[in-house]
Amino acid sequence: MSLIVQKYGGSSVADADRIKNVASRIARSRDLGADVVAVVSAMGDTTDELIDLAHSVSPQPDAREMDLLLSTGELVSCTLLTMALRTLGYPAISLSGEQAGIHTDTTYGKARISRIDTARVRQELEKGQLIVVAGFQGVTDDLDVTTLGRGGSDTTAVALAAAMDADRCEIYTDVDGIYTADPRLAPDARKLEEIGYQEMLELASYGAKMHPRSIELGMVYNVPIYVASSFKETPGTLIHQGPDEDPVEDRVKVTGIACNTNVAKITVRSVVDRPGVAAALFEPLAQVGVNVDTIVQNTSADRTTDISFTVSRTDLPGALRQVETVLGELGAAGVITDSSLASVSIVGSGMQNTPGYASRMFRALADGGINIDMITTSEIRISCIIDESQLGEAVQLLHHGFQLEEDN
Amino acid sequence: MSLIVQKYGGSSVADADRIKNVASRIARSRDLGADVVAVVSAMGDTTDELIDLAHSVSPQPDAREMDLLLSTGELVSCTLLTMALRTLGYPAISLSGEQAGIHTDTTYGKARISRIDTARVRQELEKGQLIVVAGFQGVTDDLDVTTLGRGGSDTTAVALAAAMDADRCEIYTDVDGIYTADPRLAPDARKLEEIGYQEMLELASYGAKMHPRSIELGMVYNVPIYVASSFKETPGTLIHQGPDEDPVEDRVKVTGIACNTNVAKITVRSVVDRPGVAAALFEPLAQVGVNVDTIVQNTSADRTTDISFTVSRTDLPGALRQVETVLGELGAAGVITDSSLASVSIVGSGMQNTPGYASRMFRALADGGINIDMITTSEIRISCIIDESQLGEAVQLLHHGFQLEEDN
Repeated sequence: MSLIVQKYGGSSVADADRIKNVASRIARSRDLGADVVAVVSAMGDTTDELIDLAHSVSPQPDAREMDLLLSTGELVSCTLLTMALRTLGYPAISLSGEQAGIHTDTTYGKARISRIDTARVRQELEKGQLIVVAGFQGVTDDLDVTTLGRGGSDTTAVALAAAMDADRCEIYTDVDGIYTADPRLAPDARKLEEIGYQEMLELASYGAKMHPRSIELGMVYNVPIYVASSFKETPGTLIHQGPDEDPVEDRVKVTGIACNTNVAKITVRSVVDRPGVAAALFEPLAQVGVNVDTIVQNTSADRTTDISFTVSRTDLPGALRQVETVLGELGAAGVITDSSLASVSIVGSGMQNTPGYASRMFRALADGGINIDMITTSEIRISCIIDESQLGEAVQLLHHGFQLEEDN
Repeated sequence: MSLIVQKYGGSSVADADRIKNVASRIARSRDLGADVVAVVSAMGDTTDELIDLAHSVSPQPDAREMDLLLSTGELVSCTLLTMALRTLGYPAISLSGEQAGIHTDTTYGKARISRIDTARVRQELEKGQLIVVAGFQGVTDDLDVTTLGRGGSDTTAVALAAAMDADRCEIYTDVDGIYTADPRLAPDARKLEEIGYQEMLELASYGAKMHPRSIELGMVYNVPIYVASSFKETPGTLIHQGPDEDPVEDRVKVTGIACNTNVAKITVRSVVDRPGVAAALFEPLAQVGVNVDTIVQNTSADRTTDISFTVSRTDLPGALRQVETVLGELGAAGVITDSSLASVSIVGSGMQNTPGYASRMFRALADGGINIDMITTSEIRISCIIDESQLGEAVQLLHHGFQLEEDN
């Protein structure tokens, strides 16, 4: 019997009817002969409502308490889905993160999975049960409940699939696959039948709907991930070790365009240029868990430098507080921020070691009158930070410029 | 330092303002020098809302799933209360039933506490933390979450107080103490300063607001229980091993009147009277967890008997199903039910071994034209099953008949 891990997002279980719909889909997979472990997110806006509740009693809720609070959202959806499955006549059991053996470190709000003890899941599968696991949550060695942060339920699903050596992990969501660009910005965008882990990782890191953590996990443990709609029956996109990543195959192409509006820039002015400056600036940010993305530093003739870097907009207030504590130490003239930015990226493993992509990208943007604020690259990605107001235009220019509307 | 366990009911934590109010009360106890373990119920109507949610996906939700679902209500209130305490500047931590070491059997929906492992609670107290425990819930040896049924949070509080050898257990609720009768029915009702466990147990079993389980636990482990309002500052009632239960003191009096409208009667008609009949009838009820209260059986000349018994109205449909399965085996002529009944009881340890109370009670009811359907007695209680429509009148007649308006 094959083993499939399926993940259903919050919009897929937003109310009783949708929960029943998901139950029917799981039942159908069972009827087709598969063992199923389903992972669910909290219903609809539950998580946001719980966050609001927390803020109604505390301006800065404690992280440990917040995690235990938020973990209830997934417990509600997973028990309801289990009840719906049993009502259809299928043996089913719900498991909390702890019961499913999801052990994590103690970084509340952004915990990382340390190990998965699959004993209980295996035991329930052997009894013939369909299993519904509360996503997004785990437990520390002290039995304190943690949450996995953004994309947490996807991470739960892919990690469980890896630990259980599942045949594949299916992510059911409100988009029906991975596109060459956001269809709302690029009307010509095309759904991809398949995509390699590396490419998907870059797309996800730079704005596509999935969180990069789960892709990364899938890549490391070689778990095929199928992304499809939980509402429609149209085929989705398979993320796997595909031909694109086979070095023998020398395909030359851009796979897709990613974009992200959750970008804020911090510039520290006139820092004295001496060893240790970067460490003094970025260590305090790491301490409070702020992820720094693009970093640009240019030393001028007078031995001072402006250091600019981007963070997510949600992290901006926290990042700014940390930066202000070290301004004196850095001998900096001041700090300025800009929240009106966005990033646009082209991604494709075919770009590897092939010159010309960057210049084509910069030319396309320049022809559209779009100013580039910062640039970063990886082996298979080139990203530009631009003004947010020009993002839609930029995506369309690049989608057309790299002929992504054609299935080549 | 003294140790106090405090319990706050659902109406006491129904919204953010009330939660902040409860936080202030706990903080005040700490300021007065006490270690505090607070136990909370779910906010307001949360539990009912979760039950409705369950019924929206399943006509008969599975008991295990229901318990995990319902347990989230107390997790929400206990984390919010902890956040509110921390916002006031007090170190505080929330603990789920499992984290607080509340171990139970596997009777989902009505689990009984098997043991309490106080290690974590003690460890957090030693760190100087105020502790907020999710009431109503525990965990089986297989780490499955259970709920304790009616009165569950009171039970959690008293059991924790017993296990921690606390100085006392304070139950804060929307009533401000224990009265000689329900003040809504008997306007002359008087608040008691203190009451013995046995008397309180009878009052609670026969309708007073507290659940008898927690009283029983308090009695067994000699935990003084203080019942008071979480909104007002007026003094409440202390339930303890009081003078009333001291056999040396020979007080002769009725302490209070209890009443209960959650009464349904089942009568099995013309059962053949032979050994084993009662067992055949009541064993199937026990199997599904139905509590049978008053039982009346009278054998007639023709060797057949009617057996009548009362159950709570909520248990009536389940009880009836079970009874119908054994009607043939009992050779019974049929079964009839009545849901329009209520019970009224007089309670007082002074009644023990003192004749005359029963006849005074029956006379008072007869003078008021109230028909008595069934009668049961314990050493310190006499209960009559009457028509629900006459309950108010009966309570007033008895309250006046036994001079409870006078502080004697």
